[in-house]
Amino acid sequence: MVIQMGFENSTIKEIIGKYRRIWAINHAESVLGWDMEVNMPKEGILERSVAQGELSVLSQEFMLKPEFVNLVEKVKDENLNEYERGIVRVLSREIRILKAFPPEFVREMSEVTSKSTKAWEEARNHDDFSKFEPWLDKIINLSRRAADYLGYENEPYDALLDLFEEGTTTKDVENMFSVLEKNLKPILDKILNDGKVPSAHPLEGESYRREEMEKVNHWILEKFGFPLGMRSRIDVSPHPFTTQFGIKDVRITTRYEGSDFRRTVLSTVHEFGHALYELQQNEEFMFTPIAGGVSLGVHESQSRFWENIIGRSMEFIHLIYPVLKENLSFMNKYSPEDVYLYFNMVRPDLIRTEADMVTYNFHIMLRFKLERIMLNEDIKAKELPELWTEGMEELLGVRPKTYNEGILQDIHWAHGTIGYFPTYSIGTLLSAQIAYHLKSDIRNFDSLVGRGEFKPIKEWLREKIHRYGSIYPPKELIKMSLGEEFNPEYFIKYVEKKYL
Amino acid sequence: MVIQMGFENSTIKEIIGKYRRIWAINHAESVLGWDMEVNMPKEGILERSVAQGELSVLSQEFMLKPEFVNLVEKVKDENLNEYERGIVRVLSREIRILKAFPPEFVREMSEVTSKSTKAWEEARNHDDFSKFEPWLDKIINLSRRAADYLGYENEPYDALLDLFEEGTTTKDVENMFSVLEKNLKPILDKILNDGKVPSAHPLEGESYRREEMEKVNHWILEKFGFPLGMRSRIDVSPHPFTTQFGIKDVRITTRYEGSDFRRTVLSTVHEFGHALYELQQNEEFMFTPIAGGVSLGVHESQSRFWENIIGRSMEFIHLIYPVLKENLSFMNKYSPEDVYLYFNMVRPDLIRTEADMVTYNFHIMLRFKLERIMLNEDIKAKELPELWTEGMEELLGVRPKTYNEGILQDIHWAHGTIGYFPTYSIGTLLSAQIAYHLKSDIRNFDSLVGRGEFKPIKEWLREKIHRYGSIYPPKELIKMSLGEEFNPEYFIKYVEKKYL
Repeated sequence: MVIQMGFENSTIKEIIGKYRRIWAINHAESVLGWDMEVNMPKEGILERSVAQGELSVLSQEFMLKPEFVNLVEKVKDENLNEYERGIVRVLSREIRILKAFPPEFVREMSEVTSKSTKAWEEARNHDDFSKFEPWLDKIINLSRRAADYLGYENEPYDALLDLFEEGTTTKDVENMFSVLEKNLKPILDKILNDGKVPSAHPLEGESYRREEMEKVNHWILEKFGFPLGMRSRIDVSPHPFTTQFGIKDVRITTRYEGSDFRRTVLSTVHEFGHALYELQQNEEFMFTPIAGGVSLGVHESQSRFWENIIGRSMEFIHLIYPVLKENLSFMNKYSPEDVYLYFNMVRPDLIRTEADMVTYNFHIMLRFKLERIMLNEDIKAKELPELWTEGMEELLGVRPKTYNEGILQDIHWAHGTIGYFPTYSIGTLLSAQIAYHLKSDIRNFDSLVGRGEFKPIKEWLREKIHRYGSIYPPKELIKMSLGEEFNPEYFIKYVEKKYL
Repeated sequence: MVIQMGFENSTIKEIIGKYRRIWAINHAESVLGWDMEVNMPKEGILERSVAQGELSVLSQEFMLKPEFVNLVEKVKDENLNEYERGIVRVLSREIRILKAFPPEFVREMSEVTSKSTKAWEEARNHDDFSKFEPWLDKIINLSRRAADYLGYENEPYDALLDLFEEGTTTKDVENMFSVLEKNLKPILDKILNDGKVPSAHPLEGESYRREEMEKVNHWILEKFGFPLGMRSRIDVSPHPFTTQFGIKDVRITTRYEGSDFRRTVLSTVHEFGHALYELQQNEEFMFTPIAGGVSLGVHESQSRFWENIIGRSMEFIHLIYPVLKENLSFMNKYSPEDVYLYFNMVRPDLIRTEADMVTYNFHIMLRFKLERIMLNEDIKAKELPELWTEGMEELLGVRPKTYNEGILQDIHWAHGTIGYFPTYSIGTLLSAQIAYHLKSDIRNFDSLVGRGEFKPIKEWLREKIHRYGSIYPPKELIKMSLGEEFNPEYFIKYVEKKYL
């Protein structure tokens, strides 16, 4: 397929011109958000949150200004190239979503979620679900109303899911999880019965000094070609994340907990995957709404590709082993094979963010089921902890003993984001599908990773996915780039081959 | 004087409500600016400068919206308390300044100054004034036009000066410098002839590791009660500065050059003085235009108070000497008296930012004379280097051998800021006047500093100056707080007593 280059249509040019101040406000919001996580002194929160609130209202106002909306409407009938159609699709979608919600609803949502986040923190501090329960009821109610405002074809959950993964339906997610339930469960059981894959490892208990692992992470990022200081940074935050202030300034964070060094390595590698997607955008898209990753699921496929396919591979372990040995004194006691086993442990456990590649998706499956019940059925928040416990027992055979190990572990619902979780699994599964196609094209993939030559791999990802930004909706992008639709079977095969 | 509390007038409340989004944009601009100096990867500049440009236009647009301007006009006739009159004064002034410049002029100014800054950098890289000369001609021309747009009573320089120091006239500055020329010159000559005050010291040549001086600076800031992590931060940048994102988040930077450790200590102490002014604002002013220091001169008086009056005092040296000794191995060779002499060297030299307390003002005097010539006389940029050299010879008896040591040393003119320099001297001189009054009220000032008990000093500054924010114009604030007008004689006496 040949993409016509650049923006030629004069209405599109006018739209891009007007969009520039919205872009600038979004840029500022991102910097404020990053600073809040990485630098901000504690009491700065009061003024920062007011500033963020004002900026977010402002950017919405500009987006909904009649002259802007009319331009976007008008240009739909004109003869547009691929880029230009991408601009129209992204803006129409954003405008549709913003217009769907009445201002009173937006205000209520924002008030409730900021209070419910505090209540969730309070609940966690006391491991007491009852403090969060009334707020979760409000969130459920608001989410149902949000779905009604947005509209849907089959069920309310469709409307919320689409907010995070454009074009994906509840049916799609249901299919994905039924494949997983049918095929992944037996694999997990086999892994656990075989006993060849460890469920614990002494390396978990070894402790390190932050400076030691900083050196390792910097070495890895340098090998990856991460443009530190030129177009990127790495900082520290309790929950690692990636943010972009444009194509030329993409920042990641990692965490240093002092032990279980695998966590800091894999966080860094994971976030690098997100960052690379943003760094390899087509520069022609700068300042436009089509610059940047197209959806949460596709974004997660990039981070999971680097984390799981590369970061947990034997070749990668061999590559970084000398650097680990140089910086971690305890490493003398362990071989690269030990590190490989440690990086690839499988252990059914309670906390999603600490889960391994095989059990991870069962955590998401549970959340998807509960979220769907919240939207479709007449359920109260107080019934959810019991459903959670039953679900964990059924899916992974473990039962949380505290609320913090169970229903209070994630912040998402407190933030009012229902419909987000499935994108984690979409990304995880998609990464295996991408890996299959990439390895078909790059036959010496393993030896490239072993030698630390990531250029051809990055180039493939750029060519197939990154450079398209948000021109095409996620499903179309996948079909175009991989020559087929999203298919969870690749992940099953990948796990089967890796572990059995 | 009793200040009526709070904001009661309903129009004022409406104004403050509308101002909140302007405040938010300013907040964002400050964060973006801070991040640019402290964190931003190099290539981020392209997108960052576009974002900053858009935000600055946006905040101006909101300030000049007819409904906002009309409210400010309307409320002038109403019965207002002190706070409310402060709001009106500050906003009317900002609106008047913004309205004075036609949009084409603003655009031209912004284009020329961004190009001239690049030309200045280029000129500095090659020590070649001719590369900057045509741009300086443009800046001179634009500054004359700016003065005409703003209007003035006596001479064009008045208009520009007022931008940086509200209410101060060229005549005021001329008087200040004539007092200095008449009284400070003989003192300087005497210091240099006496030979008791050193003009060089072996401590200048001693080198340190960054971590060592970081510990010292942190220790000092802790003694000062700087709320690190709660409401403030210290970071590193080549040119130290202070910025505030509100009352609860005030950040300073310092520099570590690896030798001449006095520079990093005094930079830190200087910036702390700026920061304290912002931290001790009345919290009722949060989100309003009267929160924050009232003028550059008054701000500089606060930083110079901490740098010169406290930071260069014998008591302060004794206070920090043990910490210096603990962290700097070379300190074994030196006594507190050595450190005192080193901190208080007097050496007529070429570079303003490295100048001591006595010679500093002569640097400003030269710039003031040249700037006034630029605005009032038919002069070309190419004549300025010669005038600079002559001026330095006459004032300090030194002649620059390169442009970088002379006319190319400051970035201010390249930025298009003419009329700014005098505020440095106003602040320096005012700090001595403030010190006189503070010491009259706090009789045990010296011993407090010696014991590291800064609370009463901070409290006095809060009571007398900080808590007023920008309610009163600078001259009125000084008269109210000190019981008299600004008077350069205090500085003369201070220097005389200190050095002779």
